[in-house]
Amino acid sequence: MTYRKIRVHIENARNKASIYHITQERWDAARSRHGALARNLQVTIGWDGDILEDALRTASILVGVPARCDNLAARAPALRWIHATSAGVDGLLPLDWLPRGVTFTNNRGAHGVKAGQYMRMAYTMLHSHMPQIIANQHARRWEQLFSPNIAGRTALIAGLGDLGEAAARAAKELGLKVIGVRRTARKSRYADAVHPYSRLDRLLPRADFVVLAVPLTPETHQLLNRERLKLMKPTASVINISRAPVVDCAALAEQLRRGKLAGAILDVVDPEPLPAGSPLWDVPNLVITPHISCDDGDHYVDISLDLWFENLGRFLQGKPLKNRVDPRRGY
Amino acid sequence: MTYRKIRVHIENARNKASIYHITQERWDAARSRHGALARNLQVTIGWDGDILEDALRTASILVGVPARCDNLAARAPALRWIHATSAGVDGLLPLDWLPRGVTFTNNRGAHGVKAGQYMRMAYTMLHSHMPQIIANQHARRWEQLFSPNIAGRTALIAGLGDLGEAAARAAKELGLKVIGVRRTARKSRYADAVHPYSRLDRLLPRADFVVLAVPLTPETHQLLNRERLKLMKPTASVINISRAPVVDCAALAEQLRRGKLAGAILDVVDPEPLPAGSPLWDVPNLVITPHISCDDGDHYVDISLDLWFENLGRFLQGKPLKNRVDPRRGY
Repeated sequence: MTYRKIRVHIENARNKASIYHITQERWDAARSRHGALARNLQVTIGWDGDILEDALRTASILVGVPARCDNLAARAPALRWIHATSAGVDGLLPLDWLPRGVTFTNNRGAHGVKAGQYMRMAYTMLHSHMPQIIANQHARRWEQLFSPNIAGRTALIAGLGDLGEAAARAAKELGLKVIGVRRTARKSRYADAVHPYSRLDRLLPRADFVVLAVPLTPETHQLLNRERLKLMKPTASVINISRAPVVDCAALAEQLRRGKLAGAILDVVDPEPLPAGSPLWDVPNLVITPHISCDDGDHYVDISLDLWFENLGRFLQGKPLKNRVDPRRGY
Repeated sequence: MTYRKIRVHIENARNKASIYHITQERWDAARSRHGALARNLQVTIGWDGDILEDALRTASILVGVPARCDNLAARAPALRWIHATSAGVDGLLPLDWLPRGVTFTNNRGAHGVKAGQYMRMAYTMLHSHMPQIIANQHARRWEQLFSPNIAGRTALIAGLGDLGEAAARAAKELGLKVIGVRRTARKSRYADAVHPYSRLDRLLPRADFVVLAVPLTPETHQLLNRERLKLMKPTASVINISRAPVVDCAALAEQLRRGKLAGAILDVVDPEPLPAGSPLWDVPNLVITPHISCDDGDHYVDISLDLWFENLGRFLQGKPLKNRVDPRRGY
């Protein structure tokens, strides 16, 4: 512990949805939950850069990544830690703007609970033919589309971080078989088997649900490309809770239009917000949700700050931080 | 056991969906799963009454309720047991057509697994604002409707039979509080508390989800009527997997149109099939599914016949049958 207060600057962006805003009120609530740790801090809260340059001159810790990150070494000479308030930091890659000696962490761990609930919904909706039933309702058409027990179906989950593990757990609770795919073949708590990406082509024909839960990196860009979409069964479905560019969306739309895939639920699209003129809106058997799968609408900031305070404890004790982003891996 | 073969007639209706048809193939498969019991049987399979009158003259057991049930005592002098292949027998009430000494059973127990999966979907869809998100997609409108963790919300479940218990179990798995309401205050495995119907008015204001899983009887007809719908919170939702007349659908539609309820998912409507001209199809925040919530699309008959064979064992041993319909209760 240090006897001098640690300068923390929290940087908010007004163009983000309000659930992500670290307001004074939310900060005060978090501070009162973590009294002992919070006593060491001197905190400023800024919006859209209004007090950023002044704050950077003395800040050791920055929560929230500013719009401009160039020349940070000169602008923030005392900076030791930058924390991103999202799990995906793909928009910040490559991390060549990160000064040497500054640790960069992401918000991994804040999304699993909601992601698991969304995935229960996604698996059961797709299995129950809900995309078609929704379309039928719009067409005022009664058509009894039955479905069997979902147990025994196979979910192939790409990425086994916070989101992927939540997707795997939700799948197991519904009785699904779970095959995980990740960069390494490291085991998972909920997947029955884990394979490296290199095995993806051989695994895709077995999947009833293909779930994208990977970080977006050069390696996962267009991971589910046109050729791989064609390896899927015509009765299978796609669920993307990662980032839009990990799937070839045009090819996915084409497969859906041609009846070569049963359905898809996309929580991420490109661009967001999706413009009214996008051809994605009315692709048959495609359900679009507006990037709401993983973030708690009431408590996202509370959950995030609790995780951050946990890491602050490590920071103050000189221990390695959790959730460090590896500049080479990109997540 | 008897040394004379027992005459069983299976009566099918072609106007029912094919998943309900007890075909020769499905019968043969069930017979091979229950060899010892099946040896005692001599079985006929009829369609729309084609061989009904002849079969009734000698049948001891009838599986499937014929379109015409008048004068059964004379038409089927040896009849001892009629088994309905659905759980709800409301269409057959009152049971004044049932000859004295003939036991009438329903198909309770064949629906819980699917109902539980449907309910996981229904809770998570309603909690995630999916009815509005679906409407937004149709309007090509991106609107980030976030939702918090579903855990801690309250499901009020009316009826705690096969369907209601499945609804309660699904709710508990999502971390919901579960209040059950049934004819008696008998305990339930998954409900945190159980109350008689007479307490409904006091419980409705506490519910985030009101689930109808009751049998349709004179007592449950219009159970969720206009006055009771008005006792619900404006953020609450209705899920009906029972029978349409247990809810005042016109009042429900009105509450939804006026924004006095957040949403509803109806798996049952009146009439079914719902005609294209029905005003229900485009009620805001109402999702209609075509009576598919509880019946396994691949194995409904298999599951049903396995339950029936279990009861046949009791019948052959002279034991009381399970799933007897009580003529006074009506289920």
